[in-house]
Amino acid sequence: MKPLRILEIHHVAVAVGDLAQARSLYLEFLGLEDRGSETVPSQKVRVLFAGAGASKVECLEPLGPDSTVARFLGKRGPGLHHVAYRVADLDAALAELARRGARLIDASPRPGAGGTRVAFLHPSATGGVLTELVEDSGRRRTLRGKETG
Amino acid sequence: MKPLRILEIHHVAVAVGDLAQARSLYLEFLGLEDRGSETVPSQKVRVLFAGAGASKVECLEPLGPDSTVARFLGKRGPGLHHVAYRVADLDAALAELARRGARLIDASPRPGAGGTRVAFLHPSATGGVLTELVEDSGRRRTLRGKETG
Repeated sequence: MKPLRILEIHHVAVAVGDLAQARSLYLEFLGLEDRGSETVPSQKVRVLFAGAGASKVECLEPLGPDSTVARFLGKRGPGLHHVAYRVADLDAALAELARRGARLIDASPRPGAGGTRVAFLHPSATGGVLTELVEDSGRRRTLRGKETG
Repeated sequence: MKPLRILEIHHVAVAVGDLAQARSLYLEFLGLEDRGSETVPSQKVRVLFAGAGASKVECLEPLGPDSTVARFLGKRGPGLHHVAYRVADLDAALAELARRGARLIDASPRPGAGGTRVAFLHPSATGGVLTELVEDSGRRRTLRGKETG
């Protein structure tokens, strides 16, 4: 097996019913850093980024009832939704996973939040944990800039 | 409100039925770094640490049916269990949370894995996400050593 070259935990995602409540919880109550919010049409969510050092929490509010996050909330309620790992080369990682016959939600990369490229593995392939791989071309610059300063 | 001084995501914990399977998934399939395993009697779990850059995944296998992780597995099956944040000063953070009247599982620190001191907040206080605060006195030394090399 070739390695997938996972570099770090890119983010932890939580499903929330309401982004205003998430803002209050993550930014005011826990005091994480406000890294902005964004609509991600490909995942039918609005996202709030709450920074914690070099990593972050992504709060996911569904844009409508057909969002997978809306279905998650209906079934389980608010809570931990997925974990995302930053990889060096997403195309290479997906090619290797395909070679291994791993069950994927995304066989090829799709646009993620913050200008990233992302792909999800199926939870059945990863011990019940919905797992995302992220290629974040801005991350290197960020690491050399403010966040590790 | 005084800040809790959360520094980073210390780990993401997953509940697993079997640590050997978790080892195969996290160390071989995903290729995360083997950072050893440990029994944590205070949480009635055996833990495998799978490193991903400066953070890590903690795989939790229950030691017996009275472990909260065993109850979690019985109710939800394997999957994401909690998220842990590293704080600068756990006693100060807990004192501040008590002042705010936040619902806590641990009003005072208890021993965590790897020589840490930890305390859990109740999920009802944190949007359905079981949340742990960790004071990791070894972390500073680690940061200056191998991991950020």
